[in-house]
Amino acid sequence: MTDDRNAHAHHVAVLSDEEIFAAHEGGKLSISTSRPLETQRDLSISYTPGVARVCAAIAQDPSLAHRYTGIGRTVAIISDGTAVLGLGNIGPRAALPVMEGKAQLFNRFAGLNAVPIVLDETDPDKLVETITALAPSFGAINLEDISAPRCFEVERRLVEALDMPVMHDDQHGTAVVILAALRNACRLLERDLPELRVVISGAGAAGVACGKMLADAGVTDIVMLDSRGIIHEGRDNLNDVKVELARTTNPRGITGGILEAFEGADTFIGVSAGSIPEEALDRMADRPILFSLANPNPEIDPDLAYRYGAVVATGRSDLPNQINNVLAFPGIFHGALAAGATAITPEMKQAASRAIANVAAEELDVEHIVPSPLDARVAPAVSRAVAAAWAATTA
Amino acid sequence: MTDDRNAHAHHVAVLSDEEIFAAHEGGKLSISTSRPLETQRDLSISYTPGVARVCAAIAQDPSLAHRYTGIGRTVAIISDGTAVLGLGNIGPRAALPVMEGKAQLFNRFAGLNAVPIVLDETDPDKLVETITALAPSFGAINLEDISAPRCFEVERRLVEALDMPVMHDDQHGTAVVILAALRNACRLLERDLPELRVVISGAGAAGVACGKMLADAGVTDIVMLDSRGIIHEGRDNLNDVKVELARTTNPRGITGGILEAFEGADTFIGVSAGSIPEEALDRMADRPILFSLANPNPEIDPDLAYRYGAVVATGRSDLPNQINNVLAFPGIFHGALAAGATAITPEMKQAASRAIANVAAEELDVEHIVPSPLDARVAPAVSRAVAAAWAATTA
Repeated sequence: MTDDRNAHAHHVAVLSDEEIFAAHEGGKLSISTSRPLETQRDLSISYTPGVARVCAAIAQDPSLAHRYTGIGRTVAIISDGTAVLGLGNIGPRAALPVMEGKAQLFNRFAGLNAVPIVLDETDPDKLVETITALAPSFGAINLEDISAPRCFEVERRLVEALDMPVMHDDQHGTAVVILAALRNACRLLERDLPELRVVISGAGAAGVACGKMLADAGVTDIVMLDSRGIIHEGRDNLNDVKVELARTTNPRGITGGILEAFEGADTFIGVSAGSIPEEALDRMADRPILFSLANPNPEIDPDLAYRYGAVVATGRSDLPNQINNVLAFPGIFHGALAAGATAITPEMKQAASRAIANVAAEELDVEHIVPSPLDARVAPAVSRAVAAAWAATTA
Repeated sequence: MTDDRNAHAHHVAVLSDEEIFAAHEGGKLSISTSRPLETQRDLSISYTPGVARVCAAIAQDPSLAHRYTGIGRTVAIISDGTAVLGLGNIGPRAALPVMEGKAQLFNRFAGLNAVPIVLDETDPDKLVETITALAPSFGAINLEDISAPRCFEVERRLVEALDMPVMHDDQHGTAVVILAALRNACRLLERDLPELRVVISGAGAAGVACGKMLADAGVTDIVMLDSRGIIHEGRDNLNDVKVELARTTNPRGITGGILEAFEGADTFIGVSAGSIPEEALDRMADRPILFSLANPNPEIDPDLAYRYGAVVATGRSDLPNQINNVLAFPGIFHGALAAGATAITPEMKQAASRAIANVAAEELDVEHIVPSPLDARVAPAVSRAVAAAWAATTA
């Protein structure tokens, strides 16, 4: 396996700057008319005077906008550029290539229209106001790369304000795929998900959402670590989100740092920039599940991880079991839009997670606990599951 | 000619609701990846990890965004839905089909990416704030269907705030095409543009911009009418824009209404919803130029217009000489983006107007003072002229 991994690593390492920059020249998206515009008659139908009849109909019945405009298949990918990849707060302009890449993926895997929107604004009040103002242009909103803890408030307030699917993908997309991988790791190892003792390192966007999703899926023993150590009810200076985490996680009320958290744990999920020492792995239960997802440097050195772990996953495309959001977001938004959902509920996220796990379960092994990001079966399966979950919620 | 016009009218009249609504089902735009995404390597180039190198480069040098993202060929079409076609203030959702139609035209005639953005916000301060916040997502901004007089302030403040081309098309796109048509009417009739005596009915978006463009082109005798009559310096209750108009137009200082305005005039430009009586036409100079552009009902009844006018234009696609913004905006924005312009200057608008006139001048006759909206020569000619005008301004 080591040779194979090295081969993968080599493969990616040879991407040259020339090749990458050439592929970005002029951007990565094309916006074109989906109707012919060859004759005066075509113009009269799509534009004036014909379009006026459609406008008048929507003015009378706003629900017709979903049918007679593109919003029913259009997602806005909105970022303020404050938490972009491993690069941090690089601002809206520099964040745009990521949003364009994500729009490509929405198109490629779910056939959706997606529009990159980067905002020169970081104040949460202003972000909520701006996004609320532009919301009628779209059918759903994928928030992206907004730094914690602002992302929690911005998402919560937009979900309340808008009658449409809104999801911060760094939180929930990541959590959905992690839970899918964890379900399949349990299948492989014949363990019960609710019985796991889980350490989550990182209480940012992904860590918090992952903790919630695991709890919703029945996991009770979750210990969360941030840069100051274990989150517990006795700690001071906790922000609102961490106060809630202290209340809902850590049922054994343990305190301390990495070593205390790892004592007896059988599952590690790293969504931080930290580094886990071998000493911590020694304290874990036998044959642990190790997901160290920091990019490009996993929290656990890959050599150590493969030595200790029964199942290992990372965020890297050059290693097996890549936890990649692209497995989740195209299908989640496609399903939500197809169902006419006005929100993305916890049930829809759980359904998405099970659907991803089920696709991989067809050829399950220790190096394939999640499907390949290119697996064309995933998005349709996720979409169907998400749409069904919405229908069940509202039935 | 009457038979021909009736044939045209009949042709458009038979557009059925079925046909129009079917053409709008699911919207009129398609947003797709312009790069292959077939392999893991493709994903690694367009998305993670490769995209991080492009983000980092733009973070270091923001000017690279024009080259390595789509903004160099992407225009936002932004409306608050307050002045849509003849429908008035129908709100953002109902305005969206027009913006989608316009995005189709940007693609069809100039090969640009255009993104419809409708805003649930009408306060000028908030509009400026919202549009400024989302501006880094785009290379240029086409403001659309924003009601007067708010449109003047919103455009002015955005032009000041943003280092990119910003243009309210209802003002300047319309004015550019009107001036092009007027140049060719003068050619046909062997009149000198600066010698014309012009009445402009309507002091909204199009009327005000048209007055300014004509003045920039050398016309000195312009009388503007609004619903209260002739705009002159003695009138009270004028808003800021009209105070300026009172100062810069009406050199003979006339007062009164339609009949006084038309006395001796040789050119009428209607961009209002008013109606001009035959009595007014009787007061004009011989063989006047009559552009009555209100849609769907021209200010001058077409039968009257063809009886009195030496050259007649309307806004209707079923009559000859349609004054259609599509002759201007695709080429203007294409040229501005191609030149890397940070604004759309008066010189660029004048150049666009001359370019449109020159295309039609190749086969000039009384029914062809402007090119057909489908004439593929127009946008490239306008783009070249606009880019050259920017280069000359900044040389």
